[in-house]
Amino acid sequence: MYSLELTKPDGRRLILYSREAINPDIVAPSPFTEPLNAYPHLRWHPLRGEWVTYAAYRQGRTFLPPPEYNPLGITTDPSHPTEVPAGNWDVAVFDNRFPSLGPIGDPPSLIVPSAPAVGHCEVVVFTKDAKASLGALSLAHIELLMEVWAERTAVMARREDIAYVLPFENRGAEVGVTLHHPHGQIYAYPLVPPVPSRMQQEAQHYYEARGSGVLQDFIIAEREAGVRMLYEGEHAVAFVPVCARYPYEVWLAPTEPVESFVHLTPDQRLDLARALKTVLLKYDGLWQRPFPYLMAWYQAPVDGKAHPEAHLHAEFYPPYRTRERLKYLAGTEIAAGFFAMDALPEEKARELQQVEVTVE
Amino acid sequence: MYSLELTKPDGRRLILYSREAINPDIVAPSPFTEPLNAYPHLRWHPLRGEWVTYAAYRQGRTFLPPPEYNPLGITTDPSHPTEVPAGNWDVAVFDNRFPSLGPIGDPPSLIVPSAPAVGHCEVVVFTKDAKASLGALSLAHIELLMEVWAERTAVMARREDIAYVLPFENRGAEVGVTLHHPHGQIYAYPLVPPVPSRMQQEAQHYYEARGSGVLQDFIIAEREAGVRMLYEGEHAVAFVPVCARYPYEVWLAPTEPVESFVHLTPDQRLDLARALKTVLLKYDGLWQRPFPYLMAWYQAPVDGKAHPEAHLHAEFYPPYRTRERLKYLAGTEIAAGFFAMDALPEEKARELQQVEVTVE
Repeated sequence: MYSLELTKPDGRRLILYSREAINPDIVAPSPFTEPLNAYPHLRWHPLRGEWVTYAAYRQGRTFLPPPEYNPLGITTDPSHPTEVPAGNWDVAVFDNRFPSLGPIGDPPSLIVPSAPAVGHCEVVVFTKDAKASLGALSLAHIELLMEVWAERTAVMARREDIAYVLPFENRGAEVGVTLHHPHGQIYAYPLVPPVPSRMQQEAQHYYEARGSGVLQDFIIAEREAGVRMLYEGEHAVAFVPVCARYPYEVWLAPTEPVESFVHLTPDQRLDLARALKTVLLKYDGLWQRPFPYLMAWYQAPVDGKAHPEAHLHAEFYPPYRTRERLKYLAGTEIAAGFFAMDALPEEKARELQQVEVTVE
Repeated sequence: MYSLELTKPDGRRLILYSREAINPDIVAPSPFTEPLNAYPHLRWHPLRGEWVTYAAYRQGRTFLPPPEYNPLGITTDPSHPTEVPAGNWDVAVFDNRFPSLGPIGDPPSLIVPSAPAVGHCEVVVFTKDAKASLGALSLAHIELLMEVWAERTAVMARREDIAYVLPFENRGAEVGVTLHHPHGQIYAYPLVPPVPSRMQQEAQHYYEARGSGVLQDFIIAEREAGVRMLYEGEHAVAFVPVCARYPYEVWLAPTEPVESFVHLTPDQRLDLARALKTVLLKYDGLWQRPFPYLMAWYQAPVDGKAHPEAHLHAEFYPPYRTRERLKYLAGTEIAAGFFAMDALPEEKARELQQVEVTVE
């Protein structure tokens, strides 16, 4: 993998990735000229025992964009610069202009503990092709993206002040995404956030009690049961979990425990890319239209310790419960954290199993 | 408070409440004739260490309702029965026809632990007036509703198999509510669900360390700071918390720690009703239109033990971040449980403070 690291006019970083050497004359554009001028801060939530981050940015655009302006598309008109340049790159990563975590300033003094919102927020442009989607990319391109996720994780892991790295994608207007150019984000947190922290704790207890991984054993059981599988390769699997909390929830993982993208072997990565493409094509094939979802990749905390209990995997949370109806998170889910499902995972798995796809 | 307990033709319970004696000749209607025929079950989620409930009901309506049919309005045409009868009642409670917890059957045998979904789900009709809203009801009516919440909590608390009672209201199409007749729900859980469990744990630690309640001290600090208050009465307060996770989040509580609705004194209840009505009128006044929200009432677990650390309070989570824009929970909130806010609680509090309302 080749990469080229550049600095935008407003001081943010842009890194281009490709399988071939990237033209070193490429210049990084930015829709913004002023440096970032706001500093997010954390406030302690004493009832829940967790931190919340606050970032109040003003838009600060220096021009009114034309209607078809796509900030994630390559810059074609220098008077309307976008976030990425033309050139021979395949995946681009740049610092988020409106980071929830990152630039460090003095936090306000409040009735609860406050702190600078240490961390880092990046945008990952999956491809130059604004009309593509993650699932439409070639296996080789998806593998490259996984290497980029690995590199970004490794870079963040070297920082003393980062504890957890979460690559994710929000896709579709139904989940609030207004930019349809294929892209995701990476959040690097100064702490292990509540959900991964809880999962880490459960995995740790399980590992100590049994000497094996909770997801590792779960995958073995899902394969034996057989009824909810969507992909079974030599090194990776995808399935609707027996305990799905969203109707079309899917999990995707290497069959063996791997701590993070950094630790994947090339064979594992290729099969994981195949599993990912299979799921995405099934999703889009189900109703013959782009299928919205949140895709999150859980990795081990980056605390320098070994994490034999951790197991890299993706969880997909799609917002639909049927072709026409959204699943709204309501009282019991949001207020109690207790999920109620009116569809059985076995039925939803069958719907996705019946979507035939060709991955090559 | 007077009440009348009835049985619907399909076997479900209906309880009517009023300040005056209720006509004993009232008969309970039901849109359904067949008894409930599905049994929700729980599945263990080994990665998160929590239970998920599954309930797959078929609609089972025995007639096609006319277009203006309102199942929560009083029955006017006996050939199209609704859930509640005409009569001199003010608040009605009935068993949910599609409960996520309740009717007990044999759970399926699965690759994870499963169990019958013990518990109880009730619908609370706030008023006979389909055009009203919770905030539009008189203080006396809201007080009655709080007594109903207390009674339902007390009834559930007597059951050995119930551990937690959560009254809540989802309001507005934006949070997925299609029935606009003013109503809420009560979930009675067989366990303390993840969010109240976490809050309970934090409150317990705080109480053990300091000998006072975490919310009690928080309220004192919010009152001293003063900038985020929406209502300050002798016995109750409402404010945008300094650590709000939603732009228009509001908390509402008695100033002194009270374990649950059951433990409120009449003075506390009246002032809490006043605080609630104030917040609801401010919400609806903000943009001169019905303001959607999730309102959840947190109480102490009903395990028969004393809970000096617990403090009854409501949390409102409205889905809007500005008049035109929704806050979507995305990657960091849903996948990491780490909330990112682009508005400061102080600014949102100011907006709500400026809405003048008259409560009498």
